Amino acid sequence: MKVALLAHEQFPDRAKTAVGVLRYADYDVVAVLDRDNDGTRVHDHVADVQDAPVVASMSDVDADVDALVIGIAPIGGAFEESWRPDVRNALERGCDVYAGLHYFLEDDEEFASLAAEHGCELWDVRKPPADLGVADGVADSVDATVVATVGTDCSVGKMTATREMYEYAREEGLDAAFVATGQTGILIEGEDIPVDRVVSDFAAGAVEDMVLDAGADHDYVFVEGQASLVHPAYSGVTASILHGAMPDHLVLCHEHGRESVHGYDQALPPVASFVDRYEAFAAPVKEADVVGGMLNTRGVDADDDAREAIADFADAIGAPADDPVRFDPGSVVEVIR
Amino acid sequence: MKVALLAHEQFPDRAKTAVGVLRYADYDVVAVLDRDNDGTRVHDHVADVQDAPVVASMSDVDADVDALVIGIAPIGGAFEESWRPDVRNALERGCDVYAGLHYFLEDDEEFASLAAEHGCELWDVRKPPADLGVADGVADSVDATVVATVGTDCSVGKMTATREMYEYAREEGLDAAFVATGQTGILIEGEDIPVDRVVSDFAAGAVEDMVLDAGADHDYVFVEGQASLVHPAYSGVTASILHGAMPDHLVLCHEHGRESVHGYDQALPPVASFVDRYEAFAAPVKEADVVGGMLNTRGVDADDDAREAIADFADAIGAPADDPVRFDPGSVVEVIR
Repeated sequence: MKVALLAHEQFPDRAKTAVGVLRYADYDVVAVLDRDNDGTRVHDHVADVQDAPVVASMSDVDADVDALVIGIAPIGGAFEESWRPDVRNALERGCDVYAGLHYFLEDDEEFASLAAEHGCELWDVRKPPADLGVADGVADSVDATVVATVGTDCSVGKMTATREMYEYAREEGLDAAFVATGQTGILIEGEDIPVDRVVSDFAAGAVEDMVLDAGADHDYVFVEGQASLVHPAYSGVTASILHGAMPDHLVLCHEHGRESVHGYDQALPPVASFVDRYEAFAAPVKEADVVGGMLNTRGVDADDDAREAIADFADAIGAPADDPVRFDPGSVVEVIR
Repeated sequence: MKVALLAHEQFPDRAKTAVGVLRYADYDVVAVLDRDNDGTRVHDHVADVQDAPVVASMSDVDADVDALVIGIAPIGGAFEESWRPDVRNALERGCDVYAGLHYFLEDDEEFASLAAEHGCELWDVRKPPADLGVADGVADSVDATVVATVGTDCSVGKMTATREMYEYAREEGLDAAFVATGQTGILIEGEDIPVDRVVSDFAAGAVEDMVLDAGADHDYVFVEGQASLVHPAYSGVTASILHGAMPDHLVLCHEHGRESVHGYDQALPPVASFVDRYEAFAAPVKEADVVGGMLNTRGVDADDDAREAIADFADAIGAPADDPVRFDPGSVVEVIR
């Protein structure tokens, strides 16, 4: 399937959905829309993903496109009105539109009417199913080994680390499943539940349902964590995933150099403190240990420096660590094999 | 205003909304509906609240009634079909119906149509406003002293303790506000946001909004906590309230003798451990200390035994404690005065 990725003014560093799709999804990306980087190519910005031209708008995309994917996830999940001409253009040429916003495209009168007129699908990835319920506290009844990523902050690489561990496990011949909990993971996987959009009382229950489903059919279940227990706005999402999934093992994700909560005037506690923080939080519901760490070193130029940063991180958390994109997720996966 | 309280088969021990309304709301309760306790009176079950006859159904209520209040909050918030004849009877005689369920009465075709026909209001207390957003992490910018209740479990008395502290403070002449976060508190207060029904991403933001509003006009803000950080299904709600409210002080609520999570096969950690658990969880967003404890001793017969239980609880948490219903919330409020 051919898709265009909307990432205006944010590609690549603040367009984690777009980069996730470029790296992991089964889509053929024909263009990235970013009016600030018009005329460049994806490979000018990110080397280790599929390449595509970067253009200023949907009307600059001549190729056939099956779907326009909104590849940015702003704080609050609002729709930016400056994207409207691109979505309009896509629908008028018969493209589906996929979005992971809190603002639902299908509730937008113009988009709903254009989609009906041109026979297009509007997929609001973040719309949860209607039949969710309260967690029963039974996710640990699965025979599978359940591994969840946890983090020091938002946007440190939890989805990426989870996906890399899952793909490594599959390549090693292990029967592994990936449980997506956020819009990027869901866009890549094509299913699962956006936990941050579920009403609070049912958030853990939604995760429990997914783990029970995945654990019934697979030996290893890798659960994508969200945000952080110290996040001023999203800690409830983190808590619900951790208690709903009842994982056996945790993998702590961090971005090298991150010292405060992204977008907030709040210092992050020392990285080492997160091991006890997560283990102590998990324990009353289900004991879980931090068996490894994933360090995002995208801000580090030299590989040697990145390796040193990873060694320091591993020391701090007392467990093996790596950068799953720059280097290899294998050493961490081998611990839980 | 005259109300009837529906509490079938659950009054009084599992009907915390009904008991909360009997104790604190400005309503004149003309009847409690409980088919298992037909022919008794409220005072046969609970002594220290307003009295009323207990009857089997709404059709047994001869008195004028302005509203029928659903006074039970089952796990999951479903509507029990066995309540339908009572709701139907209420609407047919022109009563409004108030409910704090996850199931919305206004989405029920029969109820919506009866309400329209008879000019009645359906108030779904648990329906949050549509204009919520992500927390900015700024609730601590208010000049007011913010006190939040936290607990070892659900249904240990957080709403009651919060309400008792608020009322004590008002009687002492302090300018205090009560921030309700659950259906019972909202039914009593007549406003505020049901945090457990807000989508996870916005739950802390909803609490922040309420604290900013209340803190702008009052010197003390008492925030009703929900559930527990160790609850397998609802810990996300607890986390969102704690980080969204950014309280200065915490009051730990517990029910004497509670040793496992209500409705779940999960032991509670030692009561003393909750002090560090809550303070450590709060600290990265805003430092807060557990300044007192509230012990629910409804299961203890003799006052002497209750006093001994309270003394043990105070010892365990290293702070003054009391039972705010049986005895007095004053000693705890005085700490933060």
